[in-house]
Amino acid sequence: MNSRGEQSIRRLDVRRFRGGSLGVTDDPDLVAAEEPFEIRLGYSRRDGSRAEEPVSITMRTPGHDEDLAIGFLFTEGIIRSGNDVQEVVARGQRATDGLINVVRVELAPGVPVDFKRLERNFYMTSSCGVCGKASIDAVAVQGQYDVGAVDFRMSGSALGRLPAALKEQQAVFEQTGGLHASGLFDAEGRIVALREDVGRHNALDKLIGYALRRGDVPLSRNGVIVSGRASFELMQKAKMAGCPLVAAVGAPSSLAVELAREFGITLVGFLKSDRFNVYSRPDRILRAA
Amino acid sequence: MNSRGEQSIRRLDVRRFRGGSLGVTDDPDLVAAEEPFEIRLGYSRRDGSRAEEPVSITMRTPGHDEDLAIGFLFTEGIIRSGNDVQEVVARGQRATDGLINVVRVELAPGVPVDFKRLERNFYMTSSCGVCGKASIDAVAVQGQYDVGAVDFRMSGSALGRLPAALKEQQAVFEQTGGLHASGLFDAEGRIVALREDVGRHNALDKLIGYALRRGDVPLSRNGVIVSGRASFELMQKAKMAGCPLVAAVGAPSSLAVELAREFGITLVGFLKSDRFNVYSRPDRILRAA
Repeated sequence: MNSRGEQSIRRLDVRRFRGGSLGVTDDPDLVAAEEPFEIRLGYSRRDGSRAEEPVSITMRTPGHDEDLAIGFLFTEGIIRSGNDVQEVVARGQRATDGLINVVRVELAPGVPVDFKRLERNFYMTSSCGVCGKASIDAVAVQGQYDVGAVDFRMSGSALGRLPAALKEQQAVFEQTGGLHASGLFDAEGRIVALREDVGRHNALDKLIGYALRRGDVPLSRNGVIVSGRASFELMQKAKMAGCPLVAAVGAPSSLAVELAREFGITLVGFLKSDRFNVYSRPDRILRAA
Repeated sequence: MNSRGEQSIRRLDVRRFRGGSLGVTDDPDLVAAEEPFEIRLGYSRRDGSRAEEPVSITMRTPGHDEDLAIGFLFTEGIIRSGNDVQEVVARGQRATDGLINVVRVELAPGVPVDFKRLERNFYMTSSCGVCGKASIDAVAVQGQYDVGAVDFRMSGSALGRLPAALKEQQAVFEQTGGLHASGLFDAEGRIVALREDVGRHNALDKLIGYALRRGDVPLSRNGVIVSGRASFELMQKAKMAGCPLVAAVGAPSSLAVELAREFGITLVGFLKSDRFNVYSRPDRILRAA
C-alpha cells in the first residue's frame, strides 16, 4: 500500500453477518476516508501586499490534495492556467475547528482575482449541484476551449478496453469498495492517470489538476472515464479542461446529455467491454479499430 | 408508466455499439431527468405582513417536489415539524432564467425563521458536502431526537430481504439505470415507501418529507435503505428524522461511520440477501428471526 492508499483508508471494527444462517464475526475492516478540506487563495492586492481568502470547503478523500485544489480552482474558473499558481502550501489542520485540512494556493504576482466569482464559489461550489441556467451560461461563456472543434477519434474496441483497465488501477476501491474514480486515457484505450475520491466531482478535479500541473490542458488528445454516472457537473468540468470525450461506466442524466450536445463533447454511457451507448457526437467513435 | 415516471424520464436518441464486432444502431433511449429546482420560503414578518425568500437551488429529478421541499427544509433544520408548513405552492418556471422549477413553501403564521440558518442554507446546502466540525456540531445540537435511545430491532434475515424489495419497486431506475433510491422499511423488512432521484441526498429528503407529511417523524419504527453508498450527509439527515437504522447497498465512508457512532444510529453496509456488515450499534440486528 502506498502513502496515498494509507491516508485514503480508515481501519475500523465491523460486525459481519454471513451465509444462510447469518453467522456473526467481529473483525477489522477498511473504509474509504472522507474528511473536510478547505482551499484558501493567496493573492496580491493592488498595492502589492499579499492577502488570503477562503474559497471552498468540501468533503474529500485525503490524497492528491494539491491536484484537487488546483483542479477545483481551474474548473471553477478562478485560475486560467497552471502558470497562475506560484505554489501550493499545506497548512495542516485549522486549529479552531480541529478537523479541517487546509491548503493555501498562492497565486503568482499580478494574477487577477474575480471577487464576485470567488464569493459565489465559497458558498456554492459546482459540487452542490447548485446551478441553473445562470451557471450553465457562465460555463459556456467562460470555457476557454472550443471542445466541439477538437479532432479526436478512437475505436470502439479501444473504448471497450477501458473499464477493465480502470478497475485494475483502482487501488483504494479494491480495498474499500467506497470510491469514485476518474481516469485519463489516450486514443489507444490506455489509462494514463487515475484519481479516486468519495466525491465524483473531486475525483475529476484531482485528475484535471494533475493534467494542468503537467501542462496537458487543454486535454485535446485524451478522454476521461468515470466509474459511476455522468451528471451535469462532470460535463462542465470536462468542458473547462477542453476534454472532447467523457465515458461513464454508469448512466448519464438528461442534463449531462444536454450539456454534452451543447458543448460538442462525445458522451459515452453504460460502457462495457463489448457494448456502450453514445449520447452525443458519435462521429468521434470509429467502429473499426 | 405513472405521472411520476413520465416526468422523471427523458427520451432521446442514442447510438448503440453492440457485440464483438460492435454493430451500430441509432435508437431512442430513456435517461433519468435532472433539472434545477428552487425552494422559496413564505413567512410572516413581525408586523404580520408576508415575505418570501429563496432558500435553495438544487439539481433534482422531477417528481415528488413537495416531499423534497419539505424534507429539505426539515433536514436542514429550517422547519421543526410538518405543522410548521401551511401549504406548498408550485410556482412553475422562473421566467428570467426559463429553466428553474420553483416551489414556495408557506410557513404557518407565527413560525419563526432563523435568518442566519436560512442564509447559510441558500449558499451551502448539505448536499454540497460543505460541512466541517461547525456543521457537525450544529446537527448534533440541533437534532430534536435522541436516536441512540430508540428501541428498534430487526432480524438479519428481514434485513437481507431489503435489496430485492428495493429493486422490485425502483421503477425509474429500471428504465434508465440512472437514479439513486431511498426506501423506508419496517422491522419485518417490508419497503413501505420509496423515492428516487439523481442525487442521493434528494432521494432521502423526498422520503423524509413524505414521512413528515404523514406525521411519521420521528421514524422510531422504521429504517432507511439507500441504493448506493452511505456518506456523512445521509447520516445527518437520518439523525434529523430520528431514524435508528440506515442500510446501504454500497460502502460507507469513514465519516458516515463516525457520525453513526456519535449519533447512535445502526449503520449497515454492503447489504446483500445473505451477508452484510454492521458498522455501529450492531445490538439492533438480531441473528435469529
